[in-house]
Amino acid sequence: MTFTQRHLLGIEPLHPVEITAILDKAEEYAALNRSAHKQSDALKGLTQINMFFENSTRTQASFELAGKRLGADVMNMSMQSSSLKKGETLIDTALTLNAMHPDLLVVRHPNSGAVNLLAEKVNCAVLNAGDGRHEHPTQALLDALTIRRKKGRLHRLIVAICGDIAHSRVARSNLILLGKMENRVRLIGPPTLMPAGVAEFGCEVYDDMKAGLQDADVVMMLRLQKERMDGGFIPSEREYYHRYGLDAEKLAHAKPDAIVMHPGPMNRGVEIDGTIADDINRSVIQEQVEMGVAVRMAAMDLLARNLKASRAGEG
Amino acid sequence: MTFTQRHLLGIEPLHPVEITAILDKAEEYAALNRSAHKQSDALKGLTQINMFFENSTRTQASFELAGKRLGADVMNMSMQSSSLKKGETLIDTALTLNAMHPDLLVVRHPNSGAVNLLAEKVNCAVLNAGDGRHEHPTQALLDALTIRRKKGRLHRLIVAICGDIAHSRVARSNLILLGKMENRVRLIGPPTLMPAGVAEFGCEVYDDMKAGLQDADVVMMLRLQKERMDGGFIPSEREYYHRYGLDAEKLAHAKPDAIVMHPGPMNRGVEIDGTIADDINRSVIQEQVEMGVAVRMAAMDLLARNLKASRAGEG
Amino acid sequence: MTFTQRHLLGIEPLHPVEITAILDKAEEYAALNRSAHKQSDALKGLTQINMFFENSTRTQASFELAGKRLGADVMNMSMQSSSLKKGETLIDTALTLNAMHPDLLVVRHPNSGAVNLLAEKVNCAVLNAGDGRHEHPTQALLDALTIRRKKGRLHRLIVAICGDIAHSRVARSNLILLGKMENRVRLIGPPTLMPAGVAEFGCEVYDDMKAGLQDADVVMMLRLQKERMDGGFIPSEREYYHRYGLDAEKLAHAKPDAIVMHPGPMNRGVEIDGTIADDINRSVIQEQVEMGVAVRMAAMDLLARNLKASRAGEG
Repeated sequence: MTFTQRHLLGIEPLHPVEITAILDKAEEYAALNRSAHKQSDALKGLTQINMFFENSTRTQASFELAGKRLGADVMNMSMQSSSLKKGETLIDTALTLNAMHPDLLVVRHPNSGAVNLLAEKVNCAVLNAGDGRHEHPTQALLDALTIRRKKGRLHRLIVAICGDIAHSRVARSNLILLGKMENRVRLIGPPTLMPAGVAEFGCEVYDDMKAGLQDADVVMMLRLQKERMDGGFIPSEREYYHRYGLDAEKLAHAKPDAIVMHPGPMNRGVEIDGTIADDINRSVIQEQVEMGVAVRMAAMDLLARNLKASRAGEG
Repeated sequence: MTFTQRHLLGIEPLHPVEITAILDKAEEYAALNRSAHKQSDALKGLTQINMFFENSTRTQASFELAGKRLGADVMNMSMQSSSLKKGETLIDTALTLNAMHPDLLVVRHPNSGAVNLLAEKVNCAVLNAGDGRHEHPTQALLDALTIRRKKGRLHRLIVAICGDIAHSRVARSNLILLGKMENRVRLIGPPTLMPAGVAEFGCEVYDDMKAGLQDADVVMMLRLQKERMDGGFIPSEREYYHRYGLDAEKLAHAKPDAIVMHPGPMNRGVEIDGTIADDINRSVIQEQVEMGVAVRMAAMDLLARNLKASRAGEG
Repeated sequence: MTFTQRHLLGIEPLHPVEITAILDKAEEYAALNRSAHKQSDALKGLTQINMFFENSTRTQASFELAGKRLGADVMNMSMQSSSLKKGETLIDTALTLNAMHPDLLVVRHPNSGAVNLLAEKVNCAVLNAGDGRHEHPTQALLDALTIRRKKGRLHRLIVAICGDIAHSRVARSNLILLGKMENRVRLIGPPTLMPAGVAEFGCEVYDDMKAGLQDADVVMMLRLQKERMDGGFIPSEREYYHRYGLDAEKLAHAKPDAIVMHPGPMNRGVEIDGTIADDINRSVIQEQVEMGVAVRMAAMDLLARNLKASRAGEG
């Protein structure tokens, strides 16, 4: 079997052939999701629990639909109103859920590393749905699938990731994935929103959009994460849009067939011009959402196979 | 096929034979809901998303149960805590959900017309679960089914709709439906809670309960919508009950076999006397709730048929 | 049939053979929950509604998973944001839900007796998921199953229930169950947290941990329910831990093979030492959670059988 992981905690531990295995499987589910009968029994008899310690309507919805279409019993735990408020520790919460015999645990947490910690304590497969500034692997995978479908390949592309790099687990997971698949990644953003040490990932850093977008195949805009900026430099929206917001003039520097991506939710007129977001010849933002469900179905299917195999081995 | 709609946005666009088609189908589901095995596979392999931008425990529950009993994958989105708070527009939220390939979208929204706007942007069937002061079609349909079952017909009846007409989409949808089916509708309420221009719907307007209830077959009470009265005249509850609350004395003016309806939740002692609400010979309030699930199952079943037919036609 | 109840409102109305019937059935479901395919169709075609008027992430999750694994259509109603806020009475809410034809209603309510009141108004089976200081029957049943598995029997054991007895429906339900099964129950706690009249249950009362734990087979710790202490004596956590918190020194007075229980969520370092909670040779806290799902599956299965039989009898 190509995909040998027990968990999906990040892009970092994945081998390129594992990334390709997920994307290939996701293609099958993308076709299922467009069919008249969106139902599989890949997760029949299995329990999926979504634990979101941070609100995320769209990511949770994507995982929930993915699990339901695969036939799993899906349960959402709104962890903001949970026992944690009654003084229970994160580990105790995890052990409690684990005792209910889930098979797949989907976790979003505001702290980097919290999902890895949880994964050490439980017997089931854990999927990271975003942890702090660390990783958001299914986002990078859905971006990769969208690129592969639109560009016909996922290597030797020039991909520009633009905006608030410092606060973005999306940028980090994408950077790692695109590097593993041998693409040329450029990071563009104000120096104050650029993390230290990005050079070690082998990418080029720009603070000028036009220079950074030159000949890009893919323009990946990031959301300005105001809610995660604690005390540091907060640019005015107008000033930010002027320098880093994607408009037609800046986009003209990219390749003529460059695609435009955004992980959503968008701040129109802040990081991206509304006209570009809606331009069906350039923007692939809706397809990213569509591929999100497919990639999550693929990841959960593959993890469930490994889980069943390992349990059969123990038994 | 009798029912040819793509969406259920209101009663306004429905032909009387379409109304009858929904009610007939709902009779089948009412029987199923009373049976030992409340399960159909009419929506098997389809995805239903409930988007409630306004809280409504009972309406959402009714739609959720309806979908689950029909075998759909049902997902509730609590839109109060959604991406809208992160600055996303309503249209972007709709497009995002649409990209996840739902088949049925059930929407409640505080603004009149918002559901129609959404319906223009998506590929699936949209059901209006109440939008501002505009329409609440499934409420009017469940009221119609309850009347038809209790009175044996849905035409040539005298129906009195009483109370806060101005703020009520329930009144508006009922008024349209009952008119289409050739009933005589009377609106009773204080002039300050009566909207302008109701005469054009061909109904009679009263501000005195006893006169308005004279010989009525059906007495439909409305909830006093205090939460929707912005700045205008707010009557004291005691004064309101005295003049417009339904009690035995006022009800005596209606036909001896007149039925009493209320869309819930009730303010006992404000718009209706508790004894009348509980009188199983007069009050059909519980049956309205029961028919609500059946009517929603029927509407979703019929819409799903049209959706499948139109997709097969495209394919 | 051994189990003849229509509802599960408390331990009080149960005959010892009924308790044993639930525990035996729960053993089957405990095995199912550890299997590769956690799915039964015992509740297929039935509707389960969870009405939690008080937050309880873990109990609600346990009931939700139980119902889903049994094939029910499960719906959660978050009653904090419900029509009750719009002025509807508890009874009207119950009647409304009842009209939607649920088969199983799982109710948690802050007021003692509220669940019994609800049960009188509806046609379906009602399960008490905790009401005020009254009963929490599934908690006592899961504790009993855990004890029976660990000790090989559920009679002639010395069980010490320790801590905040006065505010605890868990203590009350356990006390009744353990008494019915002919065990010796000791209550240990500060006199201010000991309810009046416990002597009539035939149990011994201690205010000293070491004396009370002497030769105990089972040590059942309770959560310090600060949220339920209204105005009365609130001990400091440090003082409380010193006198009543379970540590190695106090536990040494129990039998060498005594097991340690806690209903969760735990306040580590308040009512229990973290090392003891994590000691897999003594602590059975995770197994309690595991048995919780199994016991709830068993109770719902048995109640559904009785419901079907009574409906078939009526029909």
